[in-house]
Amino acid sequence: MSSEFGRNIRISVFGQSHGEAIGVLVDGLPAGERIDLDALQAFMERRAPGRAKTATSRKEPDEVRIVSGLVDGKTCAAPLCGIIFNTNTRSQDYAELLDKPRPAHADFTAWKKWGGAADMRGGGHFSGRLTAPLCIAGGICLQILENRGITVGAHIERIAGVCDSRFDPVGLTAEMLKNPGSKPFAVIDDAAGEAMQRAILDAAAQKDSVGGIIEIGAVGLPAGLGAPMFDGVENRLAQALFGIPAVKGVEFGEGFDVAGLRGSENNDPFRMENGQIVTDTNHAGGILGGITSGMPLIARIAIKPTPSIAQEQNTVSLSRGENAILAVHGRHDPCIVPRAVPVAEAVCAAVILDLILD
Amino acid sequence: MSSEFGRNIRISVFGQSHGEAIGVLVDGLPAGERIDLDALQAFMERRAPGRAKTATSRKEPDEVRIVSGLVDGKTCAAPLCGIIFNTNTRSQDYAELLDKPRPAHADFTAWKKWGGAADMRGGGHFSGRLTAPLCIAGGICLQILENRGITVGAHIERIAGVCDSRFDPVGLTAEMLKNPGSKPFAVIDDAAGEAMQRAILDAAAQKDSVGGIIEIGAVGLPAGLGAPMFDGVENRLAQALFGIPAVKGVEFGEGFDVAGLRGSENNDPFRMENGQIVTDTNHAGGILGGITSGMPLIARIAIKPTPSIAQEQNTVSLSRGENAILAVHGRHDPCIVPRAVPVAEAVCAAVILDLILD
Amino acid sequence: MSSEFGRNIRISVFGQSHGEAIGVLVDGLPAGERIDLDALQAFMERRAPGRAKTATSRKEPDEVRIVSGLVDGKTCAAPLCGIIFNTNTRSQDYAELLDKPRPAHADFTAWKKWGGAADMRGGGHFSGRLTAPLCIAGGICLQILENRGITVGAHIERIAGVCDSRFDPVGLTAEMLKNPGSKPFAVIDDAAGEAMQRAILDAAAQKDSVGGIIEIGAVGLPAGLGAPMFDGVENRLAQALFGIPAVKGVEFGEGFDVAGLRGSENNDPFRMENGQIVTDTNHAGGILGGITSGMPLIARIAIKPTPSIAQEQNTVSLSRGENAILAVHGRHDPCIVPRAVPVAEAVCAAVILDLILD
Amino acid sequence: MSSEFGRNIRISVFGQSHGEAIGVLVDGLPAGERIDLDALQAFMERRAPGRAKTATSRKEPDEVRIVSGLVDGKTCAAPLCGIIFNTNTRSQDYAELLDKPRPAHADFTAWKKWGGAADMRGGGHFSGRLTAPLCIAGGICLQILENRGITVGAHIERIAGVCDSRFDPVGLTAEMLKNPGSKPFAVIDDAAGEAMQRAILDAAAQKDSVGGIIEIGAVGLPAGLGAPMFDGVENRLAQALFGIPAVKGVEFGEGFDVAGLRGSENNDPFRMENGQIVTDTNHAGGILGGITSGMPLIARIAIKPTPSIAQEQNTVSLSRGENAILAVHGRHDPCIVPRAVPVAEAVCAAVILDLILD
Repeated sequence: MSSEFGRNIRISVFGQSHGEAIGVLVDGLPAGERIDLDALQAFMERRAPGRAKTATSRKEPDEVRIVSGLVDGKTCAAPLCGIIFNTNTRSQDYAELLDKPRPAHADFTAWKKWGGAADMRGGGHFSGRLTAPLCIAGGICLQILENRGITVGAHIERIAGVCDSRFDPVGLTAEMLKNPGSKPFAVIDDAAGEAMQRAILDAAAQKDSVGGIIEIGAVGLPAGLGAPMFDGVENRLAQALFGIPAVKGVEFGEGFDVAGLRGSENNDPFRMENGQIVTDTNHAGGILGGITSGMPLIARIAIKPTPSIAQEQNTVSLSRGENAILAVHGRHDPCIVPRAVPVAEAVCAAVILDLILD
Repeated sequence: MSSEFGRNIRISVFGQSHGEAIGVLVDGLPAGERIDLDALQAFMERRAPGRAKTATSRKEPDEVRIVSGLVDGKTCAAPLCGIIFNTNTRSQDYAELLDKPRPAHADFTAWKKWGGAADMRGGGHFSGRLTAPLCIAGGICLQILENRGITVGAHIERIAGVCDSRFDPVGLTAEMLKNPGSKPFAVIDDAAGEAMQRAILDAAAQKDSVGGIIEIGAVGLPAGLGAPMFDGVENRLAQALFGIPAVKGVEFGEGFDVAGLRGSENNDPFRMENGQIVTDTNHAGGILGGITSGMPLIARIAIKPTPSIAQEQNTVSLSRGENAILAVHGRHDPCIVPRAVPVAEAVCAAVILDLILD
Repeated sequence: MSSEFGRNIRISVFGQSHGEAIGVLVDGLPAGERIDLDALQAFMERRAPGRAKTATSRKEPDEVRIVSGLVDGKTCAAPLCGIIFNTNTRSQDYAELLDKPRPAHADFTAWKKWGGAADMRGGGHFSGRLTAPLCIAGGICLQILENRGITVGAHIERIAGVCDSRFDPVGLTAEMLKNPGSKPFAVIDDAAGEAMQRAILDAAAQKDSVGGIIEIGAVGLPAGLGAPMFDGVENRLAQALFGIPAVKGVEFGEGFDVAGLRGSENNDPFRMENGQIVTDTNHAGGILGGITSGMPLIARIAIKPTPSIAQEQNTVSLSRGENAILAVHGRHDPCIVPRAVPVAEAVCAAVILDLILD
Repeated sequence: MSSEFGRNIRISVFGQSHGEAIGVLVDGLPAGERIDLDALQAFMERRAPGRAKTATSRKEPDEVRIVSGLVDGKTCAAPLCGIIFNTNTRSQDYAELLDKPRPAHADFTAWKKWGGAADMRGGGHFSGRLTAPLCIAGGICLQILENRGITVGAHIERIAGVCDSRFDPVGLTAEMLKNPGSKPFAVIDDAAGEAMQRAILDAAAQKDSVGGIIEIGAVGLPAGLGAPMFDGVENRLAQALFGIPAVKGVEFGEGFDVAGLRGSENNDPFRMENGQIVTDTNHAGGILGGITSGMPLIARIAIKPTPSIAQEQNTVSLSRGENAILAVHGRHDPCIVPRAVPVAEAVCAAVILDLILD
């Protein structure tokens, strides 16, 4: 069950990076929802490589084929299965890695868990490639949420220490959420984006990689979604967001900065506004006690630098049980943060739709 | 199902802060495990108030009564139910809050979700009081893990900007993990602990509260626990850790700091050591691809400042639908971080035992 | 998770027959539902022994204590925990059984699974005694369903070959459903009931026991509950009904008799009646494709004769690994079917309420 | 989640009868298991129509394409996805049914649940066609079980009142289990099989259909699989078996016949045999208290007569809300029992493998 998440909507990802196909099965979508497949394909393109100058040169058309769950362009109460048949894989790039695990990659732990049985070509089922099926499922959920007046968006909050502006947690609008994703490089402040891209290219030039943070926002959420304790908005979002490869941290609202705030600073006072109860500030990120407050939802995820770098690194030979030197060849993004932005939106949308169907 | 977590071991928390009893049901514990009830009670005491000079003056003996699941001191393959009967509740302290939701508390969202139906006296099912049952379940899991050579421990990493030393992610030992919890104030560096307590008392003197960060570690874990994508170590720990009230962030290893590191800095090179494969560094916090690497597990959680402060705050009257002023009376910790340390250990232990039973 | 069932409402049973207490935790009940505790206790009495002349002489007051989940007599959005503290247990009756497994009882399989670790005194967690907590949970669900115009009832369809009338699958009413349960011996036709009781007493006189069938019905169900394939009405009811000790078969509508019918006989033709679509017959038992049709729900469960009989039986000594002779002493019902009637209603009500909350 | 089952192995069926493809996703298979795809295809053929003279004339090659989860013919720790692309669908046969629900079919309940949104062409997701993906998943599980010395088999126990011999619940062997499935018509006693086929053809000649019973057996199971109450062998098998279309009853061992037995007849005495504890009889069907006893597992499922018959039947027009006459055209099996035999084996194998992985 490891590759599934969701309660009301079950999203199951399948495939290996260099297998015949990758895809996703989505069970539990509301019936009768019209899905715009062109818009879905356009959303997939945001994740595809070769879009920004900082990405890998690999070409992955990621053509989505929906083989079940749709009739006449609408969901039909049966599970929806979307498939992408793999092309342009170059497994020989990875042959050496089957014996020499890449530092900071799952090569080693997969070998410990399954011995040689796991298909680790190109990272196998652990590959970032598997985020494409997530975007199929999440892209569909995004459309269904839009029809309900809910918008989810994300942007690159920082890369290599270069920071973008943050979403306004109080005045956030659907337009603000969609704007970064409409650009080739998903930031609010394009000057910051330029600096980030320079930092990425600098790292690449030094055969190195960089990490960053993605900020996710959602507006239009009704108050009252979620639940206390272990099945609340934060629990379910965190469980899913940590399913995105390379994510090492998840926070909501002020997140880790709450450690430096006093209650009088972190509390969000309530007030009446046009008959609605709102808060002046939104340090809570729209969630109190695991339940949505009706204010914008704000989350952030930390993404580590790409483990696969061309520099020589120390590792071991699994077959010979001795130390070894590894220089990863093949085509890898020096920074996966930009391509992870739509993935973060997709996962967040899937969880929110799941919460709405509780 | 909101108050439950775990796959192989299901932990279900019940009770309201001012109800007749609070407790926990634990289904799926291995059979035949001897449980030391005195050690369990001692563990409960670490969470109990009135222990450190910075805590609330409330007295909660938290006497645990195990009514099922044990025979002759051993688990007996039937679900274990542990109950704490409530005493010393002063609901009148909370009467005003039923109409005036406390900023940053679940009072408002519970009202939005259930109207007046939820029992919110003393925070009801959302209360930090419910972490006592979590400690019953987790305290039992800690004992079972110890018998398997696995130790879980935590300490206060920071409060109000005052930082403790961190666990050594490479050389961490069981002794290092147990040391902070053996003190009245769970820190590694007592000087830092003194400064933290002063900061807490300063905030309290100003009718305010402070937040902080707890660092959790575990040693003795075999490599290969967990799974890729949505059911890995990080997913399951995060889902459970966000169940601790006031947690707003969860990170593993370097966590959010990965955003400022390059791959060459963040990658943990492998090497042979006494026939074992280890890493020189442990930025990954002992988890790669959602699976344990055999290195120490490191996680951190951010805890917001106590929402209930004695200062006057703006809020609304739910009954009159107008702005109102609130000054929270009653007995509240100016900082809940110290008492949350054993809770963090409890939750982490429960998830690790659950992973071991996969 | 073995002692839990339900998706939206999670019902978790705990306790051992001779432990300190038995009980149930119910998570997910709708909030604000008034629960009549006197009516609940009266429902419990229907399961209690010593009610009919055919039952064991054991006295089990089964006084229910609700320690959480209720405020001012209403559900309060927190998990509800109901406890029965055990009294009047005579473990010495069972000492011999710990070494000599009773034929047709779980003594042997529990020993194979857990060795001596399981608490098997009085049948432990496998005991029919554990159906009392099920009645707490189900009795509450029955009340909530009644408030929604849904009635669940059951009767003894046969015992020892003596048959009662069956529920009319088309004209079934709430009154017809409640009538059998209002009697000391839950049958439609009292003459049949008298004959059944004679058959039970005959068996008892010969130190033997008898089995039977319980028929369950429900009316007021809307059409459209359930789902296709593995999570439909039949799937969920069957999974739960097999949780009642001694149940060896579950069928719906015509059940096994469909094997002797032709399509032209078994199909239920549709027709309009007062603007509603109904069927002339109801061989389907109110379920088509796992989804309710709006016609009365009909199910039947087969209950085996009580395994514990006073006759000498062949068994083995687990400690000596040799054949042995066993004569079960202690107090056992020569037929558990009558006391299982409210249990069947309880389980069915819990599943139906769970379905309604999908 | 309605189209999924299993805990350790999650089996998710997708597709609609007349959609582009049908298939199954299997998550959690043990890694490194060699799968014989020719044997799998041969197993699929047992379900395919046009095999026996009593089946529909439709041709469904059911060519299975495994697009993930296998590498070099072995499972690789990633979810396995098997797809069958649909061919030879004649939707026009079903056009009338979209307005006139077939008696005893899900047409009506699907319409009540989803209005016109569900794709009901050819029965859509409710179609018996969806048992083909089940056979992919189960056929793989059967192979994995065989490697562990566990054999599952089934036969037609009766059709239209004509009975086959039953499996010997004590002396059952792997050979006995495999024998019926090796024949074009899966019975033990071929004379009975001939009589059954005559009864089917008689019904077909009268534009009618017949139902029957399938008996399933399994040998080689270790004692101790399963659990008490709601997650035992019977609970999990029943939940899954009711997922096979047209199943209206599930029983184990003596099943409903226990109602006519006394304890002294139904109890299975234990005795030592070659150091093992066995029972002289096996009325329990190899399950006590939800846990396997080590004796052969015996289950039976009742399958109703095919609802789609060519006779004129009364129904309603959903669009006009008035009574109507329906004569189902198209190609339908006058009895689906023969083709359901491998499906029953598949589902049983999936559940048993799931239990073994607990």
